[in-house]
Amino acid sequence: MSQFSNVTVDKSANIYFEGKVTSRSVWLQDGSKITLGIMLPGAYEFGTDSVEVMEILSGDLKVLLPGQSEWLEIQGQGTFTVPAHTSFKLEVRTVTDYCCSYS
Amino acid sequence: MSQFSNVTVDKSANIYFEGKVTSRSVWLQDGSKITLGIMLPGAYEFGTDSVEVMEILSGDLKVLLPGQSEWLEIQGQGTFTVPAHTSFKLEVRTVTDYCCSYS
Repeated sequence: MSQFSNVTVDKSANIYFEGKVTSRSVWLQDGSKITLGIMLPGAYEFGTDSVEVMEILSGDLKVLLPGQSEWLEIQGQGTFTVPAHTSFKLEVRTVTDYCCSYS
Repeated sequence: MSQFSNVTVDKSANIYFEGKVTSRSVWLQDGSKITLGIMLPGAYEFGTDSVEVMEILSGDLKVLLPGQSEWLEIQGQGTFTVPAHTSFKLEVRTVTDYCCSYS
């Protein structure tokens, strides 16, 4: 299984939407942060402070990126990038495991 | 915030009960494993392979330990230990953040 080594992990979770979206923050050796998270079925909108690269590790969902009119469909695995200072919408159909990077 | 440093984290989540219980495995420097997890409201039963020390970081739940007839109530924070090769029951009332150690 893929792992991140020599990292620092926050003990407490980040909890959103009454626990339907949760993550743990992980600090890599170069000082950058990722979050490893789970989304349960539901509709969500998130704002971004920085560029976010969302890697879907497993799941079934669709994503509406800022400025787009067409939803991006992901079944299984996929990756999308969200610009900083924007927002994006998600419609999650099955339990979705993700890894989000910030830059 | 409390953190674990110089650890290895599995990228993919452990997913149970259709995502209502999820965790990430974290390997400490001494080789021991912990899991950092979230439980959503519901009733669950878990078996143990080793001794498990469950530290509740936040939540509202009750726990029935093996051989006990009285439920242990936890509101907020608490810790309980489950012997190896047994099972325990949980009734989770609010989103619960936990850290589980194995030995």
